[in-house]
Parts: sequence; C-alpha cells; structure tokens
Amino acid sequence: MRHSHTSTGTEHSQRLRRLRRAMREEGVDALLITHLPDIRYLCGFSGSNGALALAAKEAILFTDGRYTVQAAQETRAARVRIAAKSAQGEACAWLAASGAAHCGFDASHTTVADLDLFRRSVAQARRVQARGRAGGARFFRALSAPLVHNLRMIKDAGELKLIERAAHLGVKLFTDLLPHVHAGMPESELAGMLELAARMHDADGMSFDTIVASGPRSSLPHGRATSRPLPRRGFVTLDFGVILNGYCSDMTRTFFLGKATRRERFAYDAVREAQRAAVDIVRPGVSCGEVDEAARSVLRKAGLADFFTHSTGHGVGLEIHEAPRLAAAEQQRLVSGMVITIEPGVYLPGRFGVRIEDMVAVTGDGARVLTPAPTAWTEL
Amino acid sequence: MRHSHTSTGTEHSQRLRRLRRAMREEGVDALLITHLPDIRYLCGFSGSNGALALAAKEAILFTDGRYTVQAAQETRAARVRIAAKSAQGEACAWLAASGAAHCGFDASHTTVADLDLFRRSVAQARRVQARGRAGGARFFRALSAPLVHNLRMIKDAGELKLIERAAHLGVKLFTDLLPHVHAGMPESELAGMLELAARMHDADGMSFDTIVASGPRSSLPHGRATSRPLPRRGFVTLDFGVILNGYCSDMTRTFFLGKATRRERFAYDAVREAQRAAVDIVRPGVSCGEVDEAARSVLRKAGLADFFTHSTGHGVGLEIHEAPRLAAAEQQRLVSGMVITIEPGVYLPGRFGVRIEDMVAVTGDGARVLTPAPTAWTEL
Repeated sequence: MRHSHTSTGTEHSQRLRRLRRAMREEGVDALLITHLPDIRYLCGFSGSNGALALAAKEAILFTDGRYTVQAAQETRAARVRIAAKSAQGEACAWLAASGAAHCGFDASHTTVADLDLFRRSVAQARRVQARGRAGGARFFRALSAPLVHNLRMIKDAGELKLIERAAHLGVKLFTDLLPHVHAGMPESELAGMLELAARMHDADGMSFDTIVASGPRSSLPHGRATSRPLPRRGFVTLDFGVILNGYCSDMTRTFFLGKATRRERFAYDAVREAQRAAVDIVRPGVSCGEVDEAARSVLRKAGLADFFTHSTGHGVGLEIHEAPRLAAAEQQRLVSGMVITIEPGVYLPGRFGVRIEDMVAVTGDGARVLTPAPTAWTEL
Repeated sequence: MRHSHTSTGTEHSQRLRRLRRAMREEGVDALLITHLPDIRYLCGFSGSNGALALAAKEAILFTDGRYTVQAAQETRAARVRIAAKSAQGEACAWLAASGAAHCGFDASHTTVADLDLFRRSVAQARRVQARGRAGGARFFRALSAPLVHNLRMIKDAGELKLIERAAHLGVKLFTDLLPHVHAGMPESELAGMLELAARMHDADGMSFDTIVASGPRSSLPHGRATSRPLPRRGFVTLDFGVILNGYCSDMTRTFFLGKATRRERFAYDAVREAQRAAVDIVRPGVSCGEVDEAARSVLRKAGLADFFTHSTGHGVGLEIHEAPRLAAAEQQRLVSGMVITIEPGVYLPGRFGVRIEDMVAVTGDGARVLTPAPTAWTEL
C-alpha cells in the first residue's frame, strides 16, 4: 500500500490553530465537529464514523472499534478515543466535562435529531457529574458561519500538491481514453472504461457519477451515462473526476463525432472563448461574480447567454463542491490558495450542448490551470 | 433508453394514502419531505434537488429548472412545480398557504440550518399574506418517528420485483467475474472489472464503495479495494452491490486462493453454518434480535463469537442501509415484504477474515433468498 497522505502533523496543527482563532472570534470556547470531510481536514482521520471534540487546549477524535488501527495510523494533532457506544455521545460527555462554557456546532451539517442527541448527552453527563452548570440546551450554539468549511476554502501547500496529483490523473485518464472512443459504443462503456482505468491508477473512487452525454443528450447539463450508443454524428460531453488520496478532481471536455455544422462549431468556439476569458481574469482580489461575468459576457456577445443556465464554477478539495461559488454577483473575492473550477456551457434543449471545464489554482498573482488537457476543437 | 421504473401511479397513490394515515396518527395535517430517497419512493422523482409538500388533499413536488423534463416524465401521484429560486423555500410558502395547522418534518434528515430556512420561509410567506396564524416557529413539528422510512421498510410488489432484478444482476456479475480472479491481480482491478461489467448491464452505479479485502486485509470488515495484489495464498472477501433502476443490491462472498489450513477452513464452515441458520429462521413474527442470535449462537459454539464484531444485517431498498437493523436484542419483528441482508462474519485481526452475505425477502411464511450464488467452499 502507498502512503495515503503527505500532509504532516505540522499542517494539521496549523489548521487547528487557525480554527481556534476563528472560534475566539465566534465567542465559543469549544467546538464539536461531525462532518467527516471537516474531521479529515483537521486531524487526518478518514473513517466513516467519528466526532472531533475541541476544547481550549485539547482535541480528541472519538470513533468506534472498527477504526482502532486506522485511527491510530491516520490521526494527527488530536488524541484518539475509541467509544464503547456512540462516538458523538461520548464526545459530548467529554465536552461537558471540559470546563468549556459554550460549544459551537455547524448548523448546515447537524440534523435536528443530532442536536437533540448532543443536548441529551450533555445533560446526562452533567447529572452524573452533579454540577450546577448550564444544561445541554444552552451549551450548544449554532455557529454564524461554517468555520471549518471556510478555512478549507484556502488550501495549504500539502493540499495543493494532492489536488494537483488528482487533477493530473484526470488529465491522463482522459488523454488515454480518447483514442478508444467510437460511434456505437454505449455511453456507459465509456464511463466504465474511465472508472476501471481510475482504479488501476490507485484512485479511491470517482468524485461524482460520471457524466457522458452524447448527441441530443449533451443538452442535459447533468446527463449521467446511459446505455445509449454514441451517435455517428454529434457532441459528446464527458464530465468526470477522480478521488486520489482523498482529494477530488473535476474536468469536462466536449468533442465531436463526425462532421459538425457551422452552428455547432460556433457554439463550441464561443464556450471555449468564454472559458478562457474567465480563466484569464482569475487572480487574488477579483470577485467570484467578476469571473462569472467574464464567461457570461463572451456568451452574451455570441447571442448564447440564455443557454448558459448554470453558474461558472465552484471550489474543489476534499469534497467535489466547496466554497467559493462562482456565480453572478457573488461578492467573495479570490484569494491565493483557492482551487476552483471554471466551467461555462451552453445547452440548446433537445439539440446539443457544450461544456468545457478546468480546475484552476489561484496563485499569488494569477492562476495555474491544474487540468492542462487541450481544449482545441476535436472531431473523432 | 430503457424504461426506468415499473412502479405504476397506483402504487405511488397507495404509498401516499398509507403516509396520510400515519400523519393523522401523528397529529399533523401537512408534511414536508426533503430526503431524496423518500421523495423518490413517494412520487417517483429521482433528481438531485426537490421538496415534496403534502397537505390534506394535495401533493406537490417542487424542483428546479434543470429537472423540468425529467420531473414531468417521472413524477406520479403529485403535481410538479418548477421553483424560480429555492425548491424548499417555495414548498414552505405553499404549505403556509395550504390551510394546514401543523407540518411534520423528519428530524433525522433535516439540518438545523434547513429548519431555520423552513421557518423563515413560512414567516415571510405569512407576512405577505397578512394573516394572523401561527408563525413559522410553531408550524413545523419534528415527527416522533421517520414516517416515510418506516413505510419503506415493507416493500410492495413493484419494489420487490426491482430489488430482485438488482440482486440477480449482482449474482450474475459475481459468477461471471470469478473465473478471472487470480493471484497477483490488484484488488482494485477486481473491483474495477466488476464495476465496468455493472455499467455494461445498465446499472446506475454501485450501492457503496466495493470491498475487496484479500490476505490479512480480509480481517478488515470494511477493507475497500486497494492496489495490493491478491496473494498466492489467502482469503479474498468481495462485498459489493449494484444500483439498478434506483434499487440497491448487496452481497458478499469469500473464497480462497491456494490451499487453506484446517483453521481457515474451520472458520469458513462456521460462518457458512451461521449464515444458513440465520436465513433458516427468517419468517414473519420472528424478531430481528432472534435472527442475529441464530447466527451468533453458531459462532459461539465454534468459539468464534468474539470475532463476529458487527451486527447480522440490515434492510435494503432505495438505500443500501435501511430499517430494520438485525442486531442483538432488536425487538422489531419481521413482516412479509421486508428485504434484509444476512451477513455474519469473523475477523481475526492481522490474520484473516470471512463473511458471507445474502439478501433475503421475508415472505408470507418464510424467506426467499434473492442472491442465490453458491456459498460452497471455493479454492481458486
């Protein structure tokens, strides 16, 4: 087995330090983290069950007996406790005894039932301790913002390396696959070949259901691969991502089988120009809305803006959809270390569609394209 | 494209009728459903964004513009509305105007942030309507139980047909794959071949990350496929499922490469006997705990109970893990129409592991095994 992460304990300690700073600004002295990608980001643990409890000086990962070995191997910057019953319940009991006054939680990743369990666990722990402090109801506070998710928006050096590796694997798989594409093969075979190749190159899996949308189906922005055969004549949109060492890639290329009409070629060229224009203005300080507008204005000039029915892109990292959102009027400014997709497209219902997507890292003074596969017009 | 579901509108209407009965018992006259498998179950819609609003006489599915065509094609027993902004927000506004007094929601599938959005949407809608009824805070009530999930526990005839098809595809894929297995091939290649074959047989995807755990890794109950080559000598555990027309399959077989020791063979035979004993007592009226105990007692007699570290099984349907849970002391009784897995295993840390799993439908007077692949000792 390969070494599964390059992030060092130092990086995880830095992340926890940044998080504690954000906690102070929020006015909470403890935090309960149950969203698994957040847990992985903060302490490296990648199992399917866990709760990370943060108090002023201590961080403890609670998980269950299935993960005794894995948690010991993976966890950085936190101690590990194996819960006899519920990892979340025991994390709450520990937090209740930690001396913290208020514990924050992320409202967008905590269900109403979870919160009820948190509160009951704290109330029960305090009855056992027979202390007179605030019960579970007042102990937990919904954070005003998803603190960990916001930290994750700006990738550190270790993450950038891992994301670039995932993106480069995506490019390699696409480049290897292209010569094997031919009319008559089912969309699902194309998807399956790509997924098998990803497996053979050590991918953990795919970032999302592979999109292969051919012929008129290319006008569906999210056309998952079906058993439909690739047409003799028409666009094929391939949108896919791999997960490598936990980090997601995401890229889209659209190519043509047979001979295109001038209108089809015109739409492709417009999308390509829009995509380039958006990539070109990426640099620190530019707002996400401005990047979206850079793509949209090219398509507006081409008379195609009404067919660009989604936003221009999104952040990528441990999850396929992260902050920031690159949509019209988004105020968030780009910062060095963000990794985003740039993916304009046009979709003419029932006729055809085109999308081109790259992953881009925001650098100190511009952008680095992480998915350098050609976007030149391709007829197969 | 194939027809993607065999369920008729009648079946969906029946499901909604049963749900309305359960709502009356709960004392709510409206329901907001946002968990996607619940939405698919109730009205057939399979998109990635939607909210189903149920009032006394009406059911309306709210989704967004990406799904205009798909929602019209798929939705049964409910009307469709395309939301301009938020499907959930517009569903809340409609519920606020429906005349309902109390709207239930499922606390285990609603985040604290969602509930806040629900309440604000209702309060805003009521301000616009300038009526004096209860604001958003008192309108929504957490259900005492996940009503839709509980209905889904007992499958109707249309569902049983679809689940059986998915299960049979799993068996076919496993049977086709077995002759190609050999020492030295990476675990990930085995997984990838299986997944490609699933694609070629119209599967929507896999039910979960395919588990291929070979040699000492077979002692990990959840050992996802790695790049490690299959050993010359040792167990290989293959646990996988396909999704076909939305329904999940789930099965596990363990086979041996090379020549096994007596101890390895003994463990295999014990697990096989435990698995059979559990399948054999499945019938309506038996409790889930009794099924678990049937498997566990066989392993206890073999001196292996300490190495059976998980529960015996779980329900399967639109999701891979559904009710009921087949674990020690579970009181829930089996009912005709349930579909469950029976999957005892033993795991000797660092040495080897064995698991055998079938899907079983509870019938009027017993059980039908849906995954009839042989479990006889297999050395390759």
